Amino acid sequence: MLTDLAPEDLATYRSAQVNPPDFDAFWAETLAEAAEHDIDVRLSEVETGLATIKVYDVTFKGFAGQDVRAWLRVPVGIAQPLPAVVQYVGYGGGRGHALENLFWASAGFAHLQMDTRGQGSGWSLGATPDIAEIPPQVPGVLTRGVLDPATYYYRRLFTDAVRAVDAARALDVVDAGRVSVVGGSQGGGMALAVSGLRHDLAASAAFVPFLCDFPRAVRVTDSYPYREIIDYLKVHRGEQEQVHHTLAYFDGVNFARRATAPALFSVALRDPICPASTVYGAYHVYGGPREIKVWEYNAHEGGGILDDAAALHHFRTRTGAA
Amino acid sequence: MLTDLAPEDLATYRSAQVNPPDFDAFWAETLAEAAEHDIDVRLSEVETGLATIKVYDVTFKGFAGQDVRAWLRVPVGIAQPLPAVVQYVGYGGGRGHALENLFWASAGFAHLQMDTRGQGSGWSLGATPDIAEIPPQVPGVLTRGVLDPATYYYRRLFTDAVRAVDAARALDVVDAGRVSVVGGSQGGGMALAVSGLRHDLAASAAFVPFLCDFPRAVRVTDSYPYREIIDYLKVHRGEQEQVHHTLAYFDGVNFARRATAPALFSVALRDPICPASTVYGAYHVYGGPREIKVWEYNAHEGGGILDDAAALHHFRTRTGAA
Amino acid sequence: MLTDLAPEDLATYRSAQVNPPDFDAFWAETLAEAAEHDIDVRLSEVETGLATIKVYDVTFKGFAGQDVRAWLRVPVGIAQPLPAVVQYVGYGGGRGHALENLFWASAGFAHLQMDTRGQGSGWSLGATPDIAEIPPQVPGVLTRGVLDPATYYYRRLFTDAVRAVDAARALDVVDAGRVSVVGGSQGGGMALAVSGLRHDLAASAAFVPFLCDFPRAVRVTDSYPYREIIDYLKVHRGEQEQVHHTLAYFDGVNFARRATAPALFSVALRDPICPASTVYGAYHVYGGPREIKVWEYNAHEGGGILDDAAALHHFRTRTGAA
Amino acid sequence: MLTDLAPEDLATYRSAQVNPPDFDAFWAETLAEAAEHDIDVRLSEVETGLATIKVYDVTFKGFAGQDVRAWLRVPVGIAQPLPAVVQYVGYGGGRGHALENLFWASAGFAHLQMDTRGQGSGWSLGATPDIAEIPPQVPGVLTRGVLDPATYYYRRLFTDAVRAVDAARALDVVDAGRVSVVGGSQGGGMALAVSGLRHDLAASAAFVPFLCDFPRAVRVTDSYPYREIIDYLKVHRGEQEQVHHTLAYFDGVNFARRATAPALFSVALRDPICPASTVYGAYHVYGGPREIKVWEYNAHEGGGILDDAAALHHFRTRTGAA
Amino acid sequence: MLTDLAPEDLATYRSAQVNPPDFDAFWAETLAEAAEHDIDVRLSEVETGLATIKVYDVTFKGFAGQDVRAWLRVPVGIAQPLPAVVQYVGYGGGRGHALENLFWASAGFAHLQMDTRGQGSGWSLGATPDIAEIPPQVPGVLTRGVLDPATYYYRRLFTDAVRAVDAARALDVVDAGRVSVVGGSQGGGMALAVSGLRHDLAASAAFVPFLCDFPRAVRVTDSYPYREIIDYLKVHRGEQEQVHHTLAYFDGVNFARRATAPALFSVALRDPICPASTVYGAYHVYGGPREIKVWEYNAHEGGGILDDAAALHHFRTRTGAA
Amino acid sequence: MLTDLAPEDLATYRSAQVNPPDFDAFWAETLAEAAEHDIDVRLSEVETGLATIKVYDVTFKGFAGQDVRAWLRVPVGIAQPLPAVVQYVGYGGGRGHALENLFWASAGFAHLQMDTRGQGSGWSLGATPDIAEIPPQVPGVLTRGVLDPATYYYRRLFTDAVRAVDAARALDVVDAGRVSVVGGSQGGGMALAVSGLRHDLAASAAFVPFLCDFPRAVRVTDSYPYREIIDYLKVHRGEQEQVHHTLAYFDGVNFARRATAPALFSVALRDPICPASTVYGAYHVYGGPREIKVWEYNAHEGGGILDDAAALHHFRTRTGAA
Repeated sequence: MLTDLAPEDLATYRSAQVNPPDFDAFWAETLAEAAEHDIDVRLSEVETGLATIKVYDVTFKGFAGQDVRAWLRVPVGIAQPLPAVVQYVGYGGGRGHALENLFWASAGFAHLQMDTRGQGSGWSLGATPDIAEIPPQVPGVLTRGVLDPATYYYRRLFTDAVRAVDAARALDVVDAGRVSVVGGSQGGGMALAVSGLRHDLAASAAFVPFLCDFPRAVRVTDSYPYREIIDYLKVHRGEQEQVHHTLAYFDGVNFARRATAPALFSVALRDPICPASTVYGAYHVYGGPREIKVWEYNAHEGGGILDDAAALHHFRTRTGAA
Repeated sequence: MLTDLAPEDLATYRSAQVNPPDFDAFWAETLAEAAEHDIDVRLSEVETGLATIKVYDVTFKGFAGQDVRAWLRVPVGIAQPLPAVVQYVGYGGGRGHALENLFWASAGFAHLQMDTRGQGSGWSLGATPDIAEIPPQVPGVLTRGVLDPATYYYRRLFTDAVRAVDAARALDVVDAGRVSVVGGSQGGGMALAVSGLRHDLAASAAFVPFLCDFPRAVRVTDSYPYREIIDYLKVHRGEQEQVHHTLAYFDGVNFARRATAPALFSVALRDPICPASTVYGAYHVYGGPREIKVWEYNAHEGGGILDDAAALHHFRTRTGAA
Repeated sequence: MLTDLAPEDLATYRSAQVNPPDFDAFWAETLAEAAEHDIDVRLSEVETGLATIKVYDVTFKGFAGQDVRAWLRVPVGIAQPLPAVVQYVGYGGGRGHALENLFWASAGFAHLQMDTRGQGSGWSLGATPDIAEIPPQVPGVLTRGVLDPATYYYRRLFTDAVRAVDAARALDVVDAGRVSVVGGSQGGGMALAVSGLRHDLAASAAFVPFLCDFPRAVRVTDSYPYREIIDYLKVHRGEQEQVHHTLAYFDGVNFARRATAPALFSVALRDPICPASTVYGAYHVYGGPREIKVWEYNAHEGGGILDDAAALHHFRTRTGAA
Repeated sequence: MLTDLAPEDLATYRSAQVNPPDFDAFWAETLAEAAEHDIDVRLSEVETGLATIKVYDVTFKGFAGQDVRAWLRVPVGIAQPLPAVVQYVGYGGGRGHALENLFWASAGFAHLQMDTRGQGSGWSLGATPDIAEIPPQVPGVLTRGVLDPATYYYRRLFTDAVRAVDAARALDVVDAGRVSVVGGSQGGGMALAVSGLRHDLAASAAFVPFLCDFPRAVRVTDSYPYREIIDYLKVHRGEQEQVHHTLAYFDGVNFARRATAPALFSVALRDPICPASTVYGAYHVYGGPREIKVWEYNAHEGGGILDDAAALHHFRTRTGAA
Repeated sequence: MLTDLAPEDLATYRSAQVNPPDFDAFWAETLAEAAEHDIDVRLSEVETGLATIKVYDVTFKGFAGQDVRAWLRVPVGIAQPLPAVVQYVGYGGGRGHALENLFWASAGFAHLQMDTRGQGSGWSLGATPDIAEIPPQVPGVLTRGVLDPATYYYRRLFTDAVRAVDAARALDVVDAGRVSVVGGSQGGGMALAVSGLRHDLAASAAFVPFLCDFPRAVRVTDSYPYREIIDYLKVHRGEQEQVHHTLAYFDGVNFARRATAPALFSVALRDPICPASTVYGAYHVYGGPREIKVWEYNAHEGGGILDDAAALHHFRTRTGAA
Repeated sequence: MLTDLAPEDLATYRSAQVNPPDFDAFWAETLAEAAEHDIDVRLSEVETGLATIKVYDVTFKGFAGQDVRAWLRVPVGIAQPLPAVVQYVGYGGGRGHALENLFWASAGFAHLQMDTRGQGSGWSLGATPDIAEIPPQVPGVLTRGVLDPATYYYRRLFTDAVRAVDAARALDVVDAGRVSVVGGSQGGGMALAVSGLRHDLAASAAFVPFLCDFPRAVRVTDSYPYREIIDYLKVHRGEQEQVHHTLAYFDGVNFARRATAPALFSVALRDPICPASTVYGAYHVYGGPREIKVWEYNAHEGGGILDDAAALHHFRTRTGAA
């Protein structure tokens, strides 16, 4: 069963998300504050037993100069400097285990997989704390500090994500002019956010992205994590305007409007978690060159390895990578 | 279907939870740190439209001197000072709305209902933040900071709970020698913790208490919130000894061993959330006079209003309240 | 996810329920038969241990002169006669326990909470039997005797509800000119029925009312209790016209058309049990002054305590109550 | 997964159900009251279009002389008088449609399928009302009037069942000395009850019988309909002794103790609805010759058509039927 | 809740399924290949113990001359030759047990119930194997060989079904000019297929038919068995055109376009398995005289015994059967 | 909640599975038949875009000389011949996509991932058909041909698995003396089977293996795929001895008894799919050196990447691989 609009209606759907007048100021100020801290990338090689890939445990300074962890994986014996891929992770997970996720390095990229603050327990390991005052919230992070853009969890996380690109560019092994970002679900939302916030990316790929078109999402899905917002407003009756005011500053629709890097999207027409219309809400206003893979028979798994393969082709084409 | 042992086996069941040698030192130090801050109770009357009860919005200083909220409800036109009931709230909820929960004040008690830091969104409203560094955790609070007793969420919450009794005793309207504690589920776990940590309580009542006998709980239930521990260890493979080491400092079994106030427990034999054996784990070692209501056909709702009625009788008997 | 029409479509939705030509005659005759029995209110004070509220076990004569039970709760030490609130209960429940539900008396009203015949076992206790010949039916009461308006369960229950107002008005403690009715879900359906059947009410409040707009309800929800009708017709193939003929005599839409008391409705846009359109089906044709609280993020819990608070304000405004 | 004890433990399991001292007196009095009414069997042929079977709509006087419906199906062109099978129906259903259930008549028996008062809407049609005062109860019939053996629903239904044998014996087409009873689930419970209450049966067959060993059933299953008892006691706290006192008068274990007709049981080891131990509770004390078919891999469907085939062989063997 | 379009929209809905240009050639060739094998009907009487019906175990040659099993049931003592009903079975089941399904023979028909190759384990027994190379597929048969019409499972099954009519016509007991086909769900799809492939049928009846309007079905339902197609394409990304190309040769819509026998359909408006629009997709283009029973309150059980009764009337009317 | 025995009981549990006297003869004959066909390994390089790994599409002759597919992945630029890992896949899946599963090649092994005949649609792609006569069966493969060891699906699949080792040994890139086998769930069952059937393996690793201790499995789990056996016997009543007779020839317990290669097992104490006791059933009788990783808080995911890491260490230790 289709979980959202039919393909013909998705083509004409447009999001009703507002574009806050001080959106750019908010983010400029946020990133400027973070930039007051040196990126301070620290690497420590990990003993993995792998023969073709080296893995490093990475720490850099993210939001408010707080330490954020990552894995760096690079192919052994490949001529450098390499094009790089910064990868963001889906909801609930963290950077995982050093031995996992060998695709990008095997494909010849320097692969920086950023950890997700305070998550990293739902399906893959994390090692980075969230540091904040935590007002009453629904379990998860989607309503953490949601009454104010300044205190919202995703202000911290998106800032980390922007800084991860700085961390990648600071590496000797990386060709700073060929850094791309990629992610699925929450990771896709982060890739979109970064694409809207910096204009030095080689390319961008967002698979079945989460965190897009909140006003539509809360009307058309009951699935978590969007449902956390509904759960919150169910108890916090009367705070809905305040919550939606905050969310507008973090909506992929608004980041897409500002993006310039060539982007590859994917969307799944049977996805109950990130309904297709919310993805198109961002896609239709994306500011740079754009392309979308439509998976008519898939749910939130989207194109799976075929999304990765398409992103590999996309990044190769855009960066001239080997 | 019974969700745990048969009644005849519950009678002989004993918990295997360890009693950490430095348990008392840990808590003494924790409470001493909190006591460095004045309790600083602030009251502000709330306009409710009620005719028989006055309600006050209360703030006091809890863990690390952080502000904790509460409601104070007192009967209009009742001779003072009153015996008091400090009530703790179940998992996910907060102090709720001023108009709710009129039972204890209607019964002639000063009723201080403490808010729960960082919760207060699942089924009732809260207004108190949790302030901490949040390492990767499963959604909820049961694994927040669980790798170390010093950083565990419940260290902060139980300290708040102990301090709430100080707040109650500091009120003019309260007869400081007649303060009792009560709660169900997580609130019951908190009532047990406070009963183990202070010896100036008139009485205590813990309905279907949560946070008891963790080693048993994770073996016999798959229900949340105990399941948060299982979810955590499922991803954080290899951290189980560390986690159980922490939990021992927060287990109702260990608080019960130290308690002296006359206690009323309730337990439900079809409770999948707080299985009966875990409640008996605490009950069987309770240090003070004790009594338990067994609800053979109930699940986690336990005795409902009959538990309240029994607690009312218990507190009246123990405090000579009107 | 919205469970029914979007807000903009709810505004224009109108129910297709028919208005049976002999509707008024049917009810006039039904109530006249009941009125042949004296209301015969009997009170017996209950020992509750409460300090601010007195509770009475009430019995009065309802449908066919059969005894119906209720609780009367009145504030201690409040000048009389009082404005009164007659409260009806949700599906499956009964009047509950004497110690529950202290809101209205605490607010200064005489509070008569009517029991529900033959229910009172699903979530709160009841003490009143249903007395009738019970043809084959689906478990529950929604299809009990549904093949004929004369034998339908709700003919008896709505008559009890009308009579409960007579019982309230007969009390010394009550100011007969200031009696209001209130209820949620089935209780809201009963409040609407009573509002359509008597014109001496001070005010009325129906929260997320059930028993409204049956033709729409059976098309748009699969949730119980509306689903009982579907279950019945699934087996009793071919009886659908007869069933819908009966239901028209008990539909909140038809009662609303006849009502005159100032009414407060609430509706929840994510309510799967009483879908929003069915509530608007009654609201849009309500004959008296009307107001509706819309809970965009709530399910069948509606506004919870905020609905009560709004009703308190509504009744105060309409009755000049203290 | 086995839903109850392993086969080796079922062999030694014995029910703890008590045998009320006045059990026989209770039933003797109940049946004597019914016997004051003439059985008054009325037949009306139904136009079915069948070529090999004639079907009659039957009415006879059951409990308190109230009319009970049934179908009589007899083979066309078979020498008479015939052996008869009186069949009882499972929970929620009624006698169904005249065209259904052609097995017994096709096998050469006069087949009287008794309707079930007040049910007949859950999965098959019924046409017989239950007539009683209905105290507060859980939806269904298992707790209808359960506080007193005199008012319990099954007092009426079991009396109807005993009377159905009288009705069968009164038919010209039937050889009164060769009447057997059969049923599955609730129908099996009824077959057991009738086997315990009359000693003129040729044979009896109870497939996966319900209504057996209540004390065990409420401990080992959460499935409906046994769960109705649990639901009831969950709200009607404190009535459990009274309820179990009533149930002892209607327990298949107590009927089995008194039975003499040769009986065929079936039991399914993966049956969550009528757990195997409860069936063995009755089987092990059955007073007459007995045999049990064990379906190790089946749930409540038991042996299905193979149970029918076995009953056919059993009845043929016991009655010398063609 | 309606599971598909409202009645008024069903009336105007038309399927978008394509009509492959070589559809007729494909089937002509397929059936011609089968016809190269003699039908070779073999009968063996089964000892059932029934008095009014004789049952035979039948084997005939179906697709590729492979043996297909069936039951033949004929009334005892009815003048011959008889009109015949060939019945096809629902998904997952087989011909069942000899003692089951006595309706058609009791009604005076020769009743040939065809087994379903390779199924016969889900809810009723089967005895016929499927013989083929089985490419990777989703559990079930709906995607077995689906990449090519030549290898698709239903090519074999529908050929068996066409041949079953030849088998019936070859029986001495049957009046070859009065052979009808009937089935529900998958059996209804088979009845439609046979109605589209042969023009010597007396009548046809398809209850809540499956295998109709695949393009619509995969958009509007998530229920199995249609969901097998979705599951397949979820993993076999990119094969969707090929799959839908195959399905067009097996779609009831295309068979209906070619059918001539007088047909009785049934459809259920709350059927999640075979949504109403898919049934109307076939019905609206049915080539012969047609009639449809609409069950507004039923799910996939449709009209149950009333569908059978209607088919009996339909066949009697069309064949002049006794 | 633990899904099976407690750790202390697992230590002493022993399987009751029988050891068929002709087990060895059955398998010797089966493998001898397969060996009549040359292994005929065919390789075709796949364009993947990877920089560090080469991937080949492999075909070899498996059961009855039927073609079986696989992927071969080898590290680029690593000195040869390499130690090899033959990997088998979990239930429902196939060899997947060439770009997936880069772990073993990245670790310096020649990695042959065998496809699974007729599966490869549930969660990962396959390309190998099953070729057989398919008697009536439950959807899936666990009951395909289960009435006879000669026709059982796993006779074909296990033979393929044994032959895959021959295929690996036949590769130039492989050091034939250092071939190990690995798999999880069904793949673990296959690794055990191969370990029991050939004695030239360097090492073996079976994670949370399926297909072990069938007599216990069908008693203690309701989860698929073991449940397919229960579903089958539920309909195929009376075939249980025949089915269990067949299963004994394919039970990991019997393969373990015969195995000699050093084995690493993993088991998860909260695994509902492959309950811990069934794994211990095989482990306790394993004939070669053995070790088991116990995951106390995991379900069927077992140790995840940590199982892989442990197997890497195990294979390195056993084969002296780089």
